[in-house]
Amino acid sequence: MTGTARTAYLDTAPLREGDTVALVSPAGPGNEESLQRAVGYYESWGLTVKVGASVLTPHPRAKYLAGPDDARRRDLVDAWLDPEVDAVVAVRGGYGALRLLDGIDWDHMRGAAARRDGRPKLLTGSSDITALHEAFRAHLDLPTLFCPMAGNNVFRDSEPIRDDVRRWLFEPWAGRELIGPKTEIMVPGRASGRFVGGNLSLLAAAMGAPEAAVPAPGILFLEDITEEPYRLDGYLTQLRRSGRLAQSTGIVLGSWHECGDIDLVKALMRDEFGDATVPVLWEQGFGHDPNALSIPLGVDGVLDATGDEPLLTVGVSA
Amino acid sequence: MTGTARTAYLDTAPLREGDTVALVSPAGPGNEESLQRAVGYYESWGLTVKVGASVLTPHPRAKYLAGPDDARRRDLVDAWLDPEVDAVVAVRGGYGALRLLDGIDWDHMRGAAARRDGRPKLLTGSSDITALHEAFRAHLDLPTLFCPMAGNNVFRDSEPIRDDVRRWLFEPWAGRELIGPKTEIMVPGRASGRFVGGNLSLLAAAMGAPEAAVPAPGILFLEDITEEPYRLDGYLTQLRRSGRLAQSTGIVLGSWHECGDIDLVKALMRDEFGDATVPVLWEQGFGHDPNALSIPLGVDGVLDATGDEPLLTVGVSA
Repeated sequence: MTGTARTAYLDTAPLREGDTVALVSPAGPGNEESLQRAVGYYESWGLTVKVGASVLTPHPRAKYLAGPDDARRRDLVDAWLDPEVDAVVAVRGGYGALRLLDGIDWDHMRGAAARRDGRPKLLTGSSDITALHEAFRAHLDLPTLFCPMAGNNVFRDSEPIRDDVRRWLFEPWAGRELIGPKTEIMVPGRASGRFVGGNLSLLAAAMGAPEAAVPAPGILFLEDITEEPYRLDGYLTQLRRSGRLAQSTGIVLGSWHECGDIDLVKALMRDEFGDATVPVLWEQGFGHDPNALSIPLGVDGVLDATGDEPLLTVGVSA
Repeated sequence: MTGTARTAYLDTAPLREGDTVALVSPAGPGNEESLQRAVGYYESWGLTVKVGASVLTPHPRAKYLAGPDDARRRDLVDAWLDPEVDAVVAVRGGYGALRLLDGIDWDHMRGAAARRDGRPKLLTGSSDITALHEAFRAHLDLPTLFCPMAGNNVFRDSEPIRDDVRRWLFEPWAGRELIGPKTEIMVPGRASGRFVGGNLSLLAAAMGAPEAAVPAPGILFLEDITEEPYRLDGYLTQLRRSGRLAQSTGIVLGSWHECGDIDLVKALMRDEFGDATVPVLWEQGFGHDPNALSIPLGVDGVLDATGDEPLLTVGVSA
């Protein structure tokens, strides 16, 4: 499987009607209502839905965690190992996925990654789930989908977001364009490479841990929410000092929702990336924006910022 | 010098009247009034005060930085290299010290560390200045003083804080006790080792960078301010996953000023450290508490939590 795993979804949709998804909460808690809503969306798309046993279990200490570490980890691992499951879907973020990683047997996960037709299972989620995308990148090297989560209000409130997620699940990925309405070219140029990254603060929080030691060359996607500019500055500084930025063949800056004055954020990014020798896009739109685009990770793509309008395309072009 | 550098201040005070200190702002900005106040304190203690050329220079982009990186770095390096300077004093924290580290020639700094009498120069400061304490630990292996800063209101408003800082500067360190009024034993035991650490979020932000690669065994001090429990959880998780916690022979938890409900912080710390095989103290008091104690770093000491009342003593006991 591994030879074709990264191209698995270019020409074949990840899911088809009748497939099974497992809903899990590796990070923060939802509630009965948001969970049922999430189940409803996936069932309405013709999918069979399994729900992790601990999704609504309270944590004995911390309200910000959706249940004890062992329970959240077991749900995640059981879902991935379940031969009936085609995709593992995180229903919300918050905080907590990072706490699970060291207790996961990644060899075991790798052995269970193939579905009956040889394609890998799919992990979906965003925000705090960046910790899982990074761990899957480092340990499994599979395509994953960084997308708005069905337990969140933004998913409930935006039909375009739901339609976008559905298309990523039910259509092949090759040739799909990823440019949002506000996207600008910050630094021109052309790059190809693996799509990697996600939430900036979570990428910073992984530094020093095993997954950060696995090189991540490629086109680096970065976004964040409710982080003041000085905090974003610190996370970027950490990524730079760790060598992570230097591995990038291109940079795609997504959305910076509730991170204070967007002009100050843009000035920070221009300070950090304005002299980059690789192309840089500003406000591509993925992340926490109310109209956030989904992005595929762990697949190859092309960033073409040589013309007036940037192009960001899944799959390798000539 | 290096053979005795770490014991330099055990039997000889770091400063005496007539010595020279250099005030620098490696992180956030102060203002003319707070700077003059800081100068006044040190002059009133019989010290000659030099002020970094860029201390009041605005940063062209970010109000949270006390001037451009190059200017802040130059002030810091010039002060350390100045043969007339006995101590380099950060007048405030905020954010920004991390941005300076990669541009410093540490071999050059090491070569300039000895004063005329062979004792090393002293660095003082806290909060964001943790980034410098960590870099000095990794690159220079010298004693430094983690203390409230003279440009801050807490220094202006508390005579006990000023007196405490003054004693650390003008009295030898051997045998000094470091237990605040609220200190409790969280995990009993006895440990000896180097005092290391400081601000938790800054220790986390150093992960992945060169200084974090230098092992830091010893008694680990941790404190923070205005970080919600879920953020503290993330920083602890990062330190744990990087191996930093496992290097500790003991843990000293300082103050958690404006980090939300202190009982939730305590529950988090008990979750993380309650089963530790090394002694752990809770609320020793250093950090951002309005009555924060100073702590020496880069020196050896003993944590004795075997009796009813904990002891935390500078210098090696029998």
